[in-house]
Amino acid sequence: MSAATQLQSLDFLFNPRSVAIVGASADPNKTGGRPVNYLLKHGYAGRIYPINPKVEAIAGLQCYASLADLPEAPDAAIVLLGAERAPQAIRELAQIGTKLAIVLASGFGEAGAAGQELQNRMADSAAGMRILGPNTIGSMDLKAGIVLSASGALEGDDLPIGTISVASQSGGILGALLSRGTARGIGFAKLASTGNELDIDIADLIAHYVHDRDTKVIAAYIEGIRSVRKFREAAELAQKAGKPLVVYKVGRSESGARAAVSHTGAMAGEDRVYDALFQQTGVIRAETFSDLLDIPAMLATGRVMAGRNVAVLTSTGGAGSLVADNCGIVGLDVPVLDDDTAKALAALLKTDEPSHANPVDVTLAGVKPEIMTAATETLLNAGAVDGVVVVVGSSALAQPEIAIGAIKNGAAKSDKPLIAYVSPNAPHIVRELSLQGIPAYVAPETCATVLKAALPAKRRDPAAEATGTGGIALPELRSGVLNEAESRDLLARFGLAGAAQTVVDTAEEAANAARELGGPVVLKVLSRHIAHKSDVGGVKVGLTDADIGPALDDMKRTLAAQNLPEPEGFLVQKMLKGGIELILGIRRDPQLGTFILLGAGGTLAELTDDSTIRLLPIGESDAREMVCDLKISRLLNGYRGEKPYDVPALVNAILAAAKMAETLDDRLVDAEVNPLFVMPEGQGVAAADGLVVLA
Amino acid sequence: MSAATQLQSLDFLFNPRSVAIVGASADPNKTGGRPVNYLLKHGYAGRIYPINPKVEAIAGLQCYASLADLPEAPDAAIVLLGAERAPQAIRELAQIGTKLAIVLASGFGEAGAAGQELQNRMADSAAGMRILGPNTIGSMDLKAGIVLSASGALEGDDLPIGTISVASQSGGILGALLSRGTARGIGFAKLASTGNELDIDIADLIAHYVHDRDTKVIAAYIEGIRSVRKFREAAELAQKAGKPLVVYKVGRSESGARAAVSHTGAMAGEDRVYDALFQQTGVIRAETFSDLLDIPAMLATGRVMAGRNVAVLTSTGGAGSLVADNCGIVGLDVPVLDDDTAKALAALLKTDEPSHANPVDVTLAGVKPEIMTAATETLLNAGAVDGVVVVVGSSALAQPEIAIGAIKNGAAKSDKPLIAYVSPNAPHIVRELSLQGIPAYVAPETCATVLKAALPAKRRDPAAEATGTGGIALPELRSGVLNEAESRDLLARFGLAGAAQTVVDTAEEAANAARELGGPVVLKVLSRHIAHKSDVGGVKVGLTDADIGPALDDMKRTLAAQNLPEPEGFLVQKMLKGGIELILGIRRDPQLGTFILLGAGGTLAELTDDSTIRLLPIGESDAREMVCDLKISRLLNGYRGEKPYDVPALVNAILAAAKMAETLDDRLVDAEVNPLFVMPEGQGVAAADGLVVLA
Repeated sequence: MSAATQLQSLDFLFNPRSVAIVGASADPNKTGGRPVNYLLKHGYAGRIYPINPKVEAIAGLQCYASLADLPEAPDAAIVLLGAERAPQAIRELAQIGTKLAIVLASGFGEAGAAGQELQNRMADSAAGMRILGPNTIGSMDLKAGIVLSASGALEGDDLPIGTISVASQSGGILGALLSRGTARGIGFAKLASTGNELDIDIADLIAHYVHDRDTKVIAAYIEGIRSVRKFREAAELAQKAGKPLVVYKVGRSESGARAAVSHTGAMAGEDRVYDALFQQTGVIRAETFSDLLDIPAMLATGRVMAGRNVAVLTSTGGAGSLVADNCGIVGLDVPVLDDDTAKALAALLKTDEPSHANPVDVTLAGVKPEIMTAATETLLNAGAVDGVVVVVGSSALAQPEIAIGAIKNGAAKSDKPLIAYVSPNAPHIVRELSLQGIPAYVAPETCATVLKAALPAKRRDPAAEATGTGGIALPELRSGVLNEAESRDLLARFGLAGAAQTVVDTAEEAANAARELGGPVVLKVLSRHIAHKSDVGGVKVGLTDADIGPALDDMKRTLAAQNLPEPEGFLVQKMLKGGIELILGIRRDPQLGTFILLGAGGTLAELTDDSTIRLLPIGESDAREMVCDLKISRLLNGYRGEKPYDVPALVNAILAAAKMAETLDDRLVDAEVNPLFVMPEGQGVAAADGLVVLA
Repeated sequence: MSAATQLQSLDFLFNPRSVAIVGASADPNKTGGRPVNYLLKHGYAGRIYPINPKVEAIAGLQCYASLADLPEAPDAAIVLLGAERAPQAIRELAQIGTKLAIVLASGFGEAGAAGQELQNRMADSAAGMRILGPNTIGSMDLKAGIVLSASGALEGDDLPIGTISVASQSGGILGALLSRGTARGIGFAKLASTGNELDIDIADLIAHYVHDRDTKVIAAYIEGIRSVRKFREAAELAQKAGKPLVVYKVGRSESGARAAVSHTGAMAGEDRVYDALFQQTGVIRAETFSDLLDIPAMLATGRVMAGRNVAVLTSTGGAGSLVADNCGIVGLDVPVLDDDTAKALAALLKTDEPSHANPVDVTLAGVKPEIMTAATETLLNAGAVDGVVVVVGSSALAQPEIAIGAIKNGAAKSDKPLIAYVSPNAPHIVRELSLQGIPAYVAPETCATVLKAALPAKRRDPAAEATGTGGIALPELRSGVLNEAESRDLLARFGLAGAAQTVVDTAEEAANAARELGGPVVLKVLSRHIAHKSDVGGVKVGLTDADIGPALDDMKRTLAAQNLPEPEGFLVQKMLKGGIELILGIRRDPQLGTFILLGAGGTLAELTDDSTIRLLPIGESDAREMVCDLKISRLLNGYRGEKPYDVPALVNAILAAAKMAETLDDRLVDAEVNPLFVMPEGQGVAAADGLVVLA
């Protein structure tokens, strides 16, 4: 099926001209009775075909005994049957030419082997018909009033319509978001849950929302991404379209359980790979579940923080402090006000002396609506203010509509972000403010989070500058673990040079090599059977041409005494001094693909886990960012007046690793340079060790 | 005034037999009209004396023209007058023998110098009468129905009574907590705000609540602690009484602005000193504002998590994942179930095969009340389960009382923690669950936070083992910066030994010293005028007796060329090798007092800020904890099979620093050992540098 066909057929998910309800119940309180009920309740204007052999009519609509009796092939169908009977219904729907079916039943792939078998059978039966689910709660287009869903959250009839569209892998979470958003006055455009994703997945929905003109912001709840390629494409599409994509991804603590076996893999952890994916594709990751509504509610206003300066307007000191403190914690500023603003406020509040204090505390005396409006305007007008938080105190409880109006009027002449922090319990004020376009929050932490999320998005186009493949002549490569010399040779072909070295077999050769390399050298055993050379006495440092011979003979004896396989030789390497140790690795996440890991080296750095990752492909700007991510970058850039290290060479080394990964593709299992020495400026980097594993 | 007198008179804050309302208004909608109105509304049984020369009666109560007209001295008074007139009222109240006055007006100490002057005047007028405020919203005893307050949160008449008492420095925050708690079904015992704390401060309130039999948990909102000694005493009192003290402290991000001047002081930061204070006194610090209600609501049940294992019971998979994931993130476990529990659940849910999965997903089919009750009981009975979270899904919306009853019945036979996560918007269910003793939350993060807070509190009694003072002979000490030799001598007297060293003046003496010390040595200039010796060329390392002479002469010339004061001499020190570098400091926070700082040394450690602090006094267990706090402790304890370092000697060094600080008391401004080398096990620690500043 071509991509164009797929996108077209997804339209029927939200806008079918006719819908069959397979297994409809006449009891509107039963799950099976809800879809017909909700379609009518929310004003569906198309044709509804309930299917139930035992009933004549449902809610005044003619009921059909079977799909074969229908007067036409419906655009869409909701299948309410259990897992055993659903596959047969899918077969029949496909046969009569239905475009899209929604399967609510659970008991498929998520329920073990037998369920997966059932799901596979159903997939075969679909024969090209699009399927949402199984194990989904369905889809909703609130603006058009087309709801193909059994979600109890549709019971309400005051669902605010807005510009946020939701893609969720869980139906329960979709319902919770709709229910909570409705209470908060947060409006949605379209919502759908993908469940087991037999066909339509979260990326399909996101891409669909990007093309949807009613959608301005996309919120997604994700448990696991099935196709990283599709997700990347969808996320990049959203970024290009300027539609923020906010994602809550569950499963952060399971990452510990699925710890990778190898050393740097364990440092990275699976959830960090998701983090990298989100960062690289411009996705805003919701840190708390509540953020998944709170951030979109802010972004849906379209107002952007041009800078980090926040002004807080309050009539109650404590709440103002809460908001200001939390702004500071997330890296926003709550700066003192400029003279003009201070004077304007003093005139307004009739105070003798202008105060530059921020938060601006108008106290109870200043909560008159005209003063609140003028003070809000004054703060929004201040050149150095990028966004304003108005605190709604308990004084607003007496006449909420006046307080709400005052804030709304204050915001009208500015396009800077204006949000409200509601201090007492006042859900009606929260709802009404949001409905009026003033996002309102009840947690001071959230005020800070959403304003930070409203900073301009960093645009990026990694594809344009990715390393790519090709141009590198490769030797014949065997499978399995390469020894250090082989690994280093392969790395060097991509531009990742190592310390000067010679392979030797005898004490005499070693002495000659040490003499030629000059200065102190390192002696290492060369063997692809030994993963940790130090642990078996296979590394000796600080040797000269005088003592390297006996050292080599001694090492041979030590290894032989441990019954280790005959070494493939020995390496004599120039000892590196004066550089900073890093780790550069190439790893594969089974779910998300190949990524580059860069970390500080040495024991202490490992204790503090100073590392960062990026999924491939990456370009030069990604590589630069990786260096900046590390705490040790302050050292690399010349800490406290010391000379900087060769960061450009490090960036090239990262790109070399990326190019190697792209070129070797599936053949590369794992690779690591540990340590990679970054030398002082102009002196490059040098791999002091290297390990490559090929498939 | 003795402590006993103080505690007695604080009783009148919540339980006066008579109350004068100075400046009472006949209009119940005005702030001045509220207190009389609220006293009557909430059932005050004592005598109320409104004072207002312009009115005959208020709400049926006789109104008095002045305090002089009163038939008796009232136990307590609420002063509703503005800042200009309040001091005179206080003077009169004190004169007639009133025990305690509450001053609501702002415009005192918080409003600048003139306000502070006014506040001081008022303090003088009080003449022993206790004062709450000024700038307070008053006090409330919900159980007794005695509310001496103008807080609009008292408008409600369904305020749940509970066992949480609140101490707040902000009246607005007090009102927000009462308003939010009421909506959530969280009951309070007593509440008061201290405002400017002219007399009664937050520590007084906490101590009062510890003695209050209606209070089981104390929640405090703090902007700054005026007396650390009093706060410590109150917090330790609470700990001894087994009453959890939960504190939200605002002002975390201002710590950056108030960065300390000196190097390690800056690393610590002021908020970290508060953190240390809270940790050392067993205070639970609320990380978010919402936690300040959420954690007490959990702890008020008295149920304790015996271990970290949580079971999650849900009918909606997504919400169960949210809760489980967040439990994992905070370090709780959501383990697979044991065989017996799995079998019992299978029998209950009539599933063919027992599932050990946790969360337990009963799906929609399992939400019948008797099944929910039995499943809850089964999980609470499981030996390996320490606490249970029941997810309330949208299915509960139809018949909330049945769902609530099912959960409540399930909890009845166990004393393990049981909480609810409410997934859809359902404030009525949240409220009713809480009222029934099942703390209910709407954020999955909160479920994890409160269960973690319900782990057994770590008891400690630092006073019993504190280092104390005395027994150390001190030389005559001059004020100002001591030079390195003087500093090291002083440190050594307390047991903080340094690397072997000799003070010299000439090249010849230096060569002799190097010969005697043996091995490579370090040469340093000795001068109390030079803070950073390295920066001026005053340190040379790796010298021998052969080259130290010329090195010293060279150093002399270098220093002279910079016009630095004549050095007091030079130090020849044995170079230390094979140890781990730490920083050990003694610092003073202007607000909170003297503290010990321990941090990893070296540049990289500084980049990652691996440090910890404790306020004095400390004992051996504190010193041990400090070592464990550091990430570098894994290195100290023998990382990856390497030999451990001398941690016992490090603990002694910390205690030596503490003893020095206790002994020198106010004379000590600042002290630092940087680096402190921790040598391999059995070889002790050695100060390689030392700096002491005395007042």
